[in-house]
Formats: sequence, C-alpha cells, structure tokens
Amino acid sequence: MAGKVAEKRKALRENLIVLAERQITQNGLSSLRARDLAKEAGCATGAIYNVFDDLTDLILTVNARTFHRLAADVTAALDKAPDVALDQLVAMGLSYHQFAKSDYNAWRAIFDVERDPSTPPPDWYLQELAHLFGIIDGPLSIALPDMDPMERQLFTRTLFTSVHGIVMLGLDDTSAAVQSDAIETMIKLLLTHAVRPLS
Amino acid sequence: MAGKVAEKRKALRENLIVLAERQITQNGLSSLRARDLAKEAGCATGAIYNVFDDLTDLILTVNARTFHRLAADVTAALDKAPDVALDQLVAMGLSYHQFAKSDYNAWRAIFDVERDPSTPPPDWYLQELAHLFGIIDGPLSIALPDMDPMERQLFTRTLFTSVHGIVMLGLDDTSAAVQSDAIETMIKLLLTHAVRPLS
Repeated sequence: MAGKVAEKRKALRENLIVLAERQITQNGLSSLRARDLAKEAGCATGAIYNVFDDLTDLILTVNARTFHRLAADVTAALDKAPDVALDQLVAMGLSYHQFAKSDYNAWRAIFDVERDPSTPPPDWYLQELAHLFGIIDGPLSIALPDMDPMERQLFTRTLFTSVHGIVMLGLDDTSAAVQSDAIETMIKLLLTHAVRPLS
Repeated sequence: MAGKVAEKRKALRENLIVLAERQITQNGLSSLRARDLAKEAGCATGAIYNVFDDLTDLILTVNARTFHRLAADVTAALDKAPDVALDQLVAMGLSYHQFAKSDYNAWRAIFDVERDPSTPPPDWYLQELAHLFGIIDGPLSIALPDMDPMERQLFTRTLFTSVHGIVMLGLDDTSAAVQSDAIETMIKLLLTHAVRPLS
C-alpha cells in the first residue's frame, strides 16, 4: 500500500514537471499558475504541495532540466570545435547564444525565477553552475597557461557573465543596446580580444 | 482659460513623474499601480491618461531621468580618472556598478519595463544610449587607435553589455554566478584583458 502511494506521488511529480516545463517553454514563466497546472494534471491545487515545497521548488526543478540541456549543448559544441582554445571558447559562446535563442522562455526562467535571496541557491544549481564553469575552464587554462588558477576561476565567470550580458540584451527586443544580428560578432570580438596572455 | 488648463496638466504630469519615480525607487517597478498613483496625486485614475499615453509612457519618462543621472555619474567618473585610457574605462565601468547598486530599483526599471517590441524604442532612449556609448568611445579610440571605427562602435557596445552582464548577475542575490564582492575585480579583469590592440 505504501509502495502504491509512493508510486502515485512519483507519477504526479513527474507529470507536474512535464506540464510546468511545457507551460514555461510555450508561454513563459510568468504564465505559470498552480491552479491551471492542477487542472491539467487532474489533481487538486493543494496536491501540488504534497510533492513540491512550493511553486518555486517546481520551477527550480524545471530549471535544473533546462540547465542540463544547456550544459549538454555547450559540451557538444566544445567537442565539435577545432583543437584551438580560442575557437573552442567561441564555439561554446555561440552555442550558449543558440540555446538561449531557441529555448528562450526556458532559458529566461533560469534567471527570472523569484527565489528567497536570504537562503543559498539549491545545491543542484550550484553544481550545474560549477559544471558549466568547469567546461569553460578547460580551453581557458590552455589559452592562458600563466594565469593564476584562482584568477582564472574569476575570469571564467567574467567571460561567462559577459557573453550572458550580450545574449540577454541582444535577445531583448525592447533594449536596443545590442542588435540581435550582431550577437555572434560581438561574442567573437569579446573573446578574441579578452583571451590573450597579458604581456 | 486654455493657459490655466495647460498649466494644470503640466503640474499633474510633473507630480505623477515625481510620485512614480519615488514609488519605483523605493519599492521597485512591479509595485507601480495606476490606481495608487492617482490616489497619491489626488486625481482620478483616468486623469493619468490625459497626460500620459499609458503607464508605460510614464515609466519611460521616469527611466529617461534615471538614464540622465547615470550618464552624469559616468561622465563625472571619466573626468576624475587619470589621463590613461584603460583607467578611464575602468573608472566608468566602476561608476556604472556604483550607480546600479545605489539606485538599484530605478536602474532595473530601465531594463525591466515591458514595452511593445513591435514599435521602435522612443527617440530619447536611443539618444541616451548613443550618448552613453559616445562617452565610452572617447578613451576606447585612444586605447585602440588602429581599430576600424565601425568595429570600435560594436566593441563599445560589447564592453558595455559585458560590464552590464557582470553587474546584473552580481547584484542579483539569487543567481550565484557572480559574488557581489567580486564585481569590481571582474570589471577590471575584463577591461584589462580586452582593451589591448590585437598584435
């Protein structure tokens, strides 16, 4: 009996993740409503909170899957790139852009989710982030062999955040700071200039 | 009589701008409600739409003032910096960070306002943006004298957007990609590496 209850809970959980993911992907994070989700899942609204702490917990679970797809895309771009560190970094930057563009709503949800800032981010988030930074660090350590490893860690985050800034403003139709057709040129320009040993 | 009506309209407009600015600055853009504004201004909600096209028009007017303060801060930082192009660029980047940090809600409103993406941004926005990019272009043209001017225009936007990305994620308590106490080091690291002539 306990097994059946656990199974049912697990099935509801999975179902809610799939439904929430579809809603976020198709209509954006701001369109997500617990009541609508429950209706689609055929459960009471309160039943959502038997399998998730709150709606944010469910959104973060969807975001974890998005982050996973993103890291897979970036890794695939790295694997396909020529064996030249700068080219590899550019390929990863461009794949970040492609992902954000083609999976815009899910990608935005990673950054737009409202989380209580007084508690640390969930472990999976920190792990996914560390994983992504680890992928970038490989070619960067080859391009900048003399950079202090601690400084390189910071530089990895600097480059990621810079590319993110270009992509974020470039895909935002209302901002006009970056034309969307200039995003790729700007990513290349940034990395070509920034990823050189200081003489 | 017509003069008195025009005066009254102007006074209401000014009053609404000040009230909206205070509300955005103190509680963030998402807290802004036409009904609350009208109550504070002592007018009917509908009267707002006699002096502004819609709430977005009012928000953009507040954003124009914020943009103006930002450009003034960045210009002051440039004027105070040593006569070395890289130092000037770093000083401007750091003043952008300081502005965003100390005037966070107003700064976020510039990027968070929801505008119809099918119409171009208002002229004042494009002018303010061009003005800001023009300030950056000065020292950049000295640091990179051989860069093609068209490419330098793009590079100006690239550097602005990169610094913006660092500041945006750094000031977002929920993201964890950038520690807020690392923002200044990352801005310096980025500019020191990126603003060098390609050999």
